[in-house]
Amino acid sequence: MAEASHAGIDVGGTKCLGVALDSRGEIVDEHRVATPSVADRLLDVLTELAERFAPIASLGVGVPGLVDRAGVLHAAPNLGAAAGLAVGPMLGERLGMAVRVDNDATCAAVAEWRAGAGRGHDDVVMVTLGTGIGGGVIAGGELQRGTNGFAGEIGHMVVDPAGPPCPCGRRGCWERYASGSGLGWLAGARRGEEVVDEARMGSAEALAVIERYAWWIALGLANLTNMLDPAAIVIGGGLVSAADVLDEPLRRAFAELLYAPSRRPHPELHFAELGEHAGAIGAAYLGWG
Amino acid sequence: MAEASHAGIDVGGTKCLGVALDSRGEIVDEHRVATPSVADRLLDVLTELAERFAPIASLGVGVPGLVDRAGVLHAAPNLGAAAGLAVGPMLGERLGMAVRVDNDATCAAVAEWRAGAGRGHDDVVMVTLGTGIGGGVIAGGELQRGTNGFAGEIGHMVVDPAGPPCPCGRRGCWERYASGSGLGWLAGARRGEEVVDEARMGSAEALAVIERYAWWIALGLANLTNMLDPAAIVIGGGLVSAADVLDEPLRRAFAELLYAPSRRPHPELHFAELGEHAGAIGAAYLGWG
Repeated sequence: MAEASHAGIDVGGTKCLGVALDSRGEIVDEHRVATPSVADRLLDVLTELAERFAPIASLGVGVPGLVDRAGVLHAAPNLGAAAGLAVGPMLGERLGMAVRVDNDATCAAVAEWRAGAGRGHDDVVMVTLGTGIGGGVIAGGELQRGTNGFAGEIGHMVVDPAGPPCPCGRRGCWERYASGSGLGWLAGARRGEEVVDEARMGSAEALAVIERYAWWIALGLANLTNMLDPAAIVIGGGLVSAADVLDEPLRRAFAELLYAPSRRPHPELHFAELGEHAGAIGAAYLGWG
Repeated sequence: MAEASHAGIDVGGTKCLGVALDSRGEIVDEHRVATPSVADRLLDVLTELAERFAPIASLGVGVPGLVDRAGVLHAAPNLGAAAGLAVGPMLGERLGMAVRVDNDATCAAVAEWRAGAGRGHDDVVMVTLGTGIGGGVIAGGELQRGTNGFAGEIGHMVVDPAGPPCPCGRRGCWERYASGSGLGWLAGARRGEEVVDEARMGSAEALAVIERYAWWIALGLANLTNMLDPAAIVIGGGLVSAADVLDEPLRRAFAELLYAPSRRPHPELHFAELGEHAGAIGAAYLGWG
């Protein structure tokens, strides 16, 4: 009989990616299925996906949105029908085992901390730059979830109260500037990928947009550093694919924007290493315990 | 022979306040002396103050500035001559015991968490509103100091990059708006105390300034909540004396500025309970271990 593995599933807006880790943390199996639009079907799909990894010793699930400590999904902008769903308890009942459910960016943070770019440090902040911005906080060698499990919602840190309106109802949230959507906005309502491509080809205009974009990312990272003094910051999410053009202006702006930059060690800045598997790997680690 | 007590000293810009706690955490003795302007004399004064509490079982010291994990004081704007001083190691050598040294706002955070307005919670953020803004973070039941000991420097969170210049070299740091200095600035370069007095007497103009001031405080508190999801936020520092006029507009603005306010429990907002003793009490708890 096969060794029971530690399964993790990352629920995205369009697909669910599952992985199984062996006892050394290596991926031994993976599957992906489309994310259903109906909440009840989500539980069916997750159950079927988990069963494909049988036998499993543990299961963790990452979902996009606010997840409380009981595994209930609250606000979930990209999974509208699933808001309010008790994912952890209901899935646990179907499978006859405890299932740990957490925010997807929190899962990615755990993965990069345990097995990726943040490994070896006790204080790590993970920032995922995608359509929005998510995050996860490791402090004092522990994942910090906050009193309700909602810690790490760093994309809605207001950095410019007179800035553009955010769907959350406020203005100037960090993700209005520093997410993939923010890059498009800074470029004058163009696609971020186009700007990145033009910057690669040396367009002065595109490079100037990237410079401003990197400055806004760095501003938020400096704020996070003031708060938490991490040893390392790991940048993940879709924008990692633009690391080649972002890296230099980002490091430069970060060194300028840090508080008391000449009188403190600077945190290491890393791009994430685990790519699209980070959420599922982190979910597996969280379920593993 | 008297029971050995746990001594704590809070070094301020003008005075050093020392307290001794008994084994139940009650203050059994206190002394205050002027803060010397010469760094070497600071060590003499701290040594003499500690000896007045003899016998002591432990000693902690809070100082205004960045303190690393070895007890060395780095940036210290209000203790210019002492920057770079190895307060912990040097004081420890003189007294023949381990001496824990930490940032003064961090000490106040520990005091309010262990014995004040934040007691009973595992996730507490302390914000001290004085000339500047300091802070301390308790997360997961532990004081979080960060990798270098510099966590909690929340006053320099940039909330408005086009805002007024800050002595730190950047623009629009939160303490430019939400500290005591910020209140004076929002009131058109007047003294904050005057505005508070006029608000108490019902001046519509002063009440409007307090309303704006409370909004800026709330903005930073909402940012901290997004990051850390605390069970309670404790507001300390000199502005606690204005709690009577601040309380209502602050709670109102905070409830509006929280992310997803209708879909989450709100953190409790408390004003600090331990007043000017907080730093010394917290230093004593830190030394106690």
